[in-house]
Amino acid sequence: MIDHGGNLDVARARFGGELADWIDLSTGINRCPYPVRDLPMHCWTALPSRAEIEALHEAARQAYRTTGPLLVTAGAQAAIQMLPRLARPGTARILAPTYGEFAHVLRGGGWAVEAVSERDALAGADLAIIVNPNNPDGQRHQPDVLLALALRVGRLVIDESFVDATPELSLASQAGTAGLLILRSFGKFYGLAGVRLGFVLGAEADIAALGAMSGPWPVSGVAIEIGRSALLDRNWANDTRARLHRDAARLDGLAQAAGWGLVGGTPLFRLYEVGAGALAQERLARGQIWSRVFRDRLSWLRLGLPGDETEWQRLAAALSG
Amino acid sequence: MIDHGGNLDVARARFGGELADWIDLSTGINRCPYPVRDLPMHCWTALPSRAEIEALHEAARQAYRTTGPLLVTAGAQAAIQMLPRLARPGTARILAPTYGEFAHVLRGGGWAVEAVSERDALAGADLAIIVNPNNPDGQRHQPDVLLALALRVGRLVIDESFVDATPELSLASQAGTAGLLILRSFGKFYGLAGVRLGFVLGAEADIAALGAMSGPWPVSGVAIEIGRSALLDRNWANDTRARLHRDAARLDGLAQAAGWGLVGGTPLFRLYEVGAGALAQERLARGQIWSRVFRDRLSWLRLGLPGDETEWQRLAAALSG
Repeated sequence: MIDHGGNLDVARARFGGELADWIDLSTGINRCPYPVRDLPMHCWTALPSRAEIEALHEAARQAYRTTGPLLVTAGAQAAIQMLPRLARPGTARILAPTYGEFAHVLRGGGWAVEAVSERDALAGADLAIIVNPNNPDGQRHQPDVLLALALRVGRLVIDESFVDATPELSLASQAGTAGLLILRSFGKFYGLAGVRLGFVLGAEADIAALGAMSGPWPVSGVAIEIGRSALLDRNWANDTRARLHRDAARLDGLAQAAGWGLVGGTPLFRLYEVGAGALAQERLARGQIWSRVFRDRLSWLRLGLPGDETEWQRLAAALSG
Repeated sequence: MIDHGGNLDVARARFGGELADWIDLSTGINRCPYPVRDLPMHCWTALPSRAEIEALHEAARQAYRTTGPLLVTAGAQAAIQMLPRLARPGTARILAPTYGEFAHVLRGGGWAVEAVSERDALAGADLAIIVNPNNPDGQRHQPDVLLALALRVGRLVIDESFVDATPELSLASQAGTAGLLILRSFGKFYGLAGVRLGFVLGAEADIAALGAMSGPWPVSGVAIEIGRSALLDRNWANDTRARLHRDAARLDGLAQAAGWGLVGGTPLFRLYEVGAGALAQERLARGQIWSRVFRDRLSWLRLGLPGDETEWQRLAAALSG
């Protein structure tokens, strides 16, 4: 099993409390979600139609400012699950530390997986993985650098799960370039991770192959309906981007006052040097705030951003407690 | 592209009308769905937790009367998509005619696929597929016959997508038997195909392998929440079973009056011999009722059951028109 944030089961088992008592800051999921309005009955009852899926694809192209080939998936994770089968297994290199599922899934699919700590060391791999901006440390890679790197590997996968708040980093406009595959997550920025929605953008042949793997109904009617509305709502996205940038600075302020050092982050989460991560996690957990620590980086703690003012007050109290 | 029911896009392109104008009887999806009540916010916003998925598994075990290994999937189709990778490709035999996706997906995954018309001809295959009761003709296979057959093939897949209304046919209680894999669909009997929910039951090693293929969040939080409530609601299931049996007889009566002959069916759909399927489909489509015809059986027409009384009246009018 790979460690993930969002594991409130573990928090409750160790520290008690009901689900509703906890503020889950162990993920980078926006806690001010896109509002879910009443949904038309047919999105519950009917099989999703090709026309509905195409309309969702078009909404995603608009939101991501691309005209390239694109496929809906049941979250970025569903795209990762298909990745090992996009080519004959060879050598995959992953810029680390990062999201653990890439190495896990690729190894399971017969790939030789190497974690590298320098971007240039990815060159020569059959498959290279970069998360941009990176989870958990927020490392950023400029689009032109990545495009140059794409020429030096068999296939370059850019996981843009956390790019929505910094769209200038996205390579979505280059979708269609041979050897370049881009993963997008819907649930994080829109705060609706339970819906299971994401997209993969890439060369036409890759998108067709992934489409065949995922079948005729890759996502739910509910995901299609909500996703289309949300992705077309430019005002909400702009307001949310501005708020996340402000709130990330506010969180850094609280952390600094607690004596923590910023390692990096994105506007959806922050990574701090806290001395002993496990102790800091416990301190927050006594206030029923859940955070993310790392087995192999014991001094780190990752925090998502609180949502409403009550959550900010509870976090401030827990940090000063 | 494989033909499917539920393709109202096609109906609207040919015969006009808004989505809401049409009665879709082109599938076997129950048109009196399990009621969707207000859902807790966390099923939209949070990643599904292991505890929630385990609770859903337990509800499914109760509903399907089994204690065997079981895995949630995003509909029966998601299980079919994984099927080619459960073993090294070999020879797959499918009892035909039946649901077209098995042959399509297995061929795409490198299997040699043979359609056979007699159950005994499945013997000796590395992978054998039976849909029970069968779509579209309703052919039934008794559990003891299937258990005996399982010993004569490498792996026997029983697709029980339409078994909920005739649970005495299900092999779910035998889940765990080596070489036996059972697919269940949630969306058809519960009338919520848009939710994308299903289960696969089988030997422990097979279920573990499928779990690794489908990853940590195989279905949405919404599917988990609705699925758990619905599967535990025995009264609704019993009432629905009784109604479907009554309504199937009522539909057969209308069809008989229209001069159609019953080929077979399940309580969720009926297959009729209508002379010219395309003409019968057009006649119904003029009343904005969509039905299913078959490229290779031109005299067949498959009809799902109408839902409320208005739908029954419209069908009766279209049939006598």
